[in-house]
Amino acid sequence: MRKLAAGILLIAFAQITSSGPLSPAYTPEGKLKFPEGYREWIFLSSGLDMSYRERGMPGHSMFDNVFADPAAYREFVKTGTWPDGTLLAMEVRGATEKGSINQSGKFQSGETMGVEVHVKDTKRFQGGWAFFAFGGKEPSTQIPTSADCYSCHRDHGAVDTTFVQFYPTLLSIARQHGTVKPGE
Amino acid sequence: MRKLAAGILLIAFAQITSSGPLSPAYTPEGKLKFPEGYREWIFLSSGLDMSYRERGMPGHSMFDNVFADPAAYREFVKTGTWPDGTLLAMEVRGATEKGSINQSGKFQSGETMGVEVHVKDTKRFQGGWAFFAFGGKEPSTQIPTSADCYSCHRDHGAVDTTFVQFYPTLLSIARQHGTVKPGE
Repeated sequence: MRKLAAGILLIAFAQITSSGPLSPAYTPEGKLKFPEGYREWIFLSSGLDMSYRERGMPGHSMFDNVFADPAAYREFVKTGTWPDGTLLAMEVRGATEKGSINQSGKFQSGETMGVEVHVKDTKRFQGGWAFFAFGGKEPSTQIPTSADCYSCHRDHGAVDTTFVQFYPTLLSIARQHGTVKPGE
Repeated sequence: MRKLAAGILLIAFAQITSSGPLSPAYTPEGKLKFPEGYREWIFLSSGLDMSYRERGMPGHSMFDNVFADPAAYREFVKTGTWPDGTLLAMEVRGATEKGSINQSGKFQSGETMGVEVHVKDTKRFQGGWAFFAFGGKEPSTQIPTSADCYSCHRDHGAVDTTFVQFYPTLLSIARQHGTVKPGE
């Protein structure tokens, strides 16, 4: 009996210590709550001024950092794709060239300029996934499904509408599982 | 009694689930073992082609991603500086411009081109910290203390010989704790 109780305790504790719950949190009005702990999730990759246009925005230079909630990440490592409840967060930060001893190249500086979250919740969203943009930490309304992000992710995302082709560690896992969209 | 047993179990479990042990692992010859789990540690920041020279290496474009072991990170959040046993890992990856739908800017691609580890172990290393470079996953010999990395980190690292000035989330924590070197 004691063994059983300890077992249950351990399971409960494992759920508490898993910093990324597998269920997204919404307000009663259906807004997504800001994912407070995202900066301590699993880092997927970063990019600088990435654009599907030949020229990005002149005069703006920005890094993006992408994170997966730990529970979703662990499931991806096992299966090569995302479970229901997945939360991915992309934060944008200014890119600085000259600062401290740095003279060339770029580093990340200052506060975040915004956080976008991609949520997989097949019971709630048509197509399974939805996007939310956060300026601060207030709950966010879903970006309308007519926005370009939906069609672009659906048409070009290497795995389940996500841009795994830009996340080197996940790409090799997905290739092993055969879950990469043909052509990516 | 049952409560006490459960408490001990929980402590043991917390130590198991903490993926970043606070003590670096060495071989009997004093080489540092490769930190297998570093890619799931806490992400600090990334940079592109950062250099303290006016021009970086022409023809090479690389991102670096820096990670802190979770136990050291949590201590930094509490105190604004690094505990003994801290492990920081920097991985280098190729920067690609054209690929998939990306037409401008850069994303990370391919395998790591190397991992460097910065270890705080005041009982073992003069000055408290040591550097190790890994090409693969074989244990690594300490980089000699005559190398530039030691003097540069000592002279210019914002917090305890580390370049916290390039890690935005840690920099604001260190400023709150008053642990930033004057001038940085």
